[in-house]
Amino acid sequence: MTVREQFIVGIDLGGTNIAAGAMPTDGTREIAMRMVLTKASEGATAVVDRIAGLVEEVIGQTRQETGAERSDFLGVGIGAPGPLDRSRGVVITSPNLGWHDFPLRDEVSQRINMPATLDNDANCATLGEWWCGAAKGGRNVVGLTIGTGIGGGLILDGKLYHGASDAAGEIGHTTIDSTGRRCKCGNYGCLEAYASGTAIAERARELLDVEGDSIMHSMVDGDLGRLTAQTVFEASKRGDAVALEVVRDTAHFLGVGVSNLINIFNPDTFVIAGGVTQAGDLLFDPLRAEVRRRAFKSAVDACRIVPGSLPLSAGVVGAVATFRAQTLRDP
Amino acid sequence: MTVREQFIVGIDLGGTNIAAGAMPTDGTREIAMRMVLTKASEGATAVVDRIAGLVEEVIGQTRQETGAERSDFLGVGIGAPGPLDRSRGVVITSPNLGWHDFPLRDEVSQRINMPATLDNDANCATLGEWWCGAAKGGRNVVGLTIGTGIGGGLILDGKLYHGASDAAGEIGHTTIDSTGRRCKCGNYGCLEAYASGTAIAERARELLDVEGDSIMHSMVDGDLGRLTAQTVFEASKRGDAVALEVVRDTAHFLGVGVSNLINIFNPDTFVIAGGVTQAGDLLFDPLRAEVRRRAFKSAVDACRIVPGSLPLSAGVVGAVATFRAQTLRDP
Repeated sequence: MTVREQFIVGIDLGGTNIAAGAMPTDGTREIAMRMVLTKASEGATAVVDRIAGLVEEVIGQTRQETGAERSDFLGVGIGAPGPLDRSRGVVITSPNLGWHDFPLRDEVSQRINMPATLDNDANCATLGEWWCGAAKGGRNVVGLTIGTGIGGGLILDGKLYHGASDAAGEIGHTTIDSTGRRCKCGNYGCLEAYASGTAIAERARELLDVEGDSIMHSMVDGDLGRLTAQTVFEASKRGDAVALEVVRDTAHFLGVGVSNLINIFNPDTFVIAGGVTQAGDLLFDPLRAEVRRRAFKSAVDACRIVPGSLPLSAGVVGAVATFRAQTLRDP
Repeated sequence: MTVREQFIVGIDLGGTNIAAGAMPTDGTREIAMRMVLTKASEGATAVVDRIAGLVEEVIGQTRQETGAERSDFLGVGIGAPGPLDRSRGVVITSPNLGWHDFPLRDEVSQRINMPATLDNDANCATLGEWWCGAAKGGRNVVGLTIGTGIGGGLILDGKLYHGASDAAGEIGHTTIDSTGRRCKCGNYGCLEAYASGTAIAERARELLDVEGDSIMHSMVDGDLGRLTAQTVFEASKRGDAVALEVVRDTAHFLGVGVSNLINIFNPDTFVIAGGVTQAGDLLFDPLRAEVRRRAFKSAVDACRIVPGSLPLSAGVVGAVATFRAQTLRDP
């Protein structure tokens, strides 16, 4: 008798996009991956409709590809922006989605008539990289996901760490310069105020205000409002001196934050995911050098610093993994 | 048949003092606590002699007080300054002791003919406060021990966290102001450079260089070289304005560091031990206020910030606890 393969659907809910896909419970492959716009402004019910529709699409395509029955799908893992209450499956507050105390897990579960779990999106991204990506094999893993903001995830002694009230891992809002740049959280000198995608673009604009000689001006047709971190990374690869300065500064600021975390956690693996991985060695080489200068040798020697290897799917893969961890026991 | 009580000896080895004592395995009381000078300059063998002598004294007095047999003593837990290799029981390097790759655990074990374990002193202090002191009942505990430097210990999901190479918890050397004060580790802006006992005294001296009107001048007979953090705390309790400014600044700097750790760990308990607890509410009230201003509400609400309650014995109690954790299984 052969054991039938079973599947879990993963949902990665962001302020801009919802990504979805399925995986077998052993995590060996991604199936039916897709992405749609969140359109949070249409309200929570519309977003739940969209998630339910995606789950049905993913199940449909997975059945086509594998011959699975509907009963072979165990449920849905959802990753969403925090703060969350995992035990109740509630998004406590999400400025990007405009939600307060929204019972996302049960709303989705009822709509699709399947069990669901909820965890923080940054936790899911780190868990995804750990289960199937660049952080595989680690036992103590710190993950940073750098996009509009900076999210953090912690795998400690081989388990996702949540803290006392599911609020752990707010690494973006640790102070690296208490007299420094204003952060949108209200404090000064948060890592996010220097090294998020938003902050990278801001720092580039500040330099371009006084630097005429850069291809970035023409890349955005003279409209600096259109400049993003991606503009900076592309220009840096083409050798633009101003862009290279922005990338080097980013490596310095990230280096301070990463060194702090290496001194605190002594991890074996530090995975940095999100848009900044596009900068490649131009960012990671000076970042590693900065960390070697700053953090304790015994901790630096024990730690590899790697770019994420699942740029599109880490959140979905991690959402599958959180469902798996919360509902299955490993054999 | 009654089960005989069994005992563990704890040793807290510091650069200045060695503290020692015994506890029954249930941690219900401290017995035969004592302290001698380390005199590290006399060499490692002399220090091991002194530790072995202390262990014998503690065992002798405990037997007198309890009627225990020598066979009722299970072994010795040792806390020592890091970095350490726990599995080999080796102090890798300790500037304060002048040691490199010294097999402290086995040297002590052979001398006293009993099993021994070795762990980091800051880990032991936090573990002691967790097992028997102010952090009792916590499940996710961050501990800072503030003395000459700043040490950190982490209890995560109910277990001491060591990291990949026993180097976790170097919280004193996390950057809070990357363009700030020089630290003796070589970096700029480490928490330790602002809020250690040494740094508190330094900042007070800097203020007193330009401030004539302070009782601290007479407290040290005009010799600022004799001023310590304790001078500052005593003067602040007597209402000295300069001392109060130093204490308020300390609360601010510690507040930045504590907020970072609360955002990262979302602990239920944050215990701050060492000499600074002498400052009492004069320090802890503005510190808690600073943390409420800086850290995420959901994380702040979940966390109590408490002074350590075992100022003299936390290290010894924690050393007993590490031996217990490494050799006994809980029933």
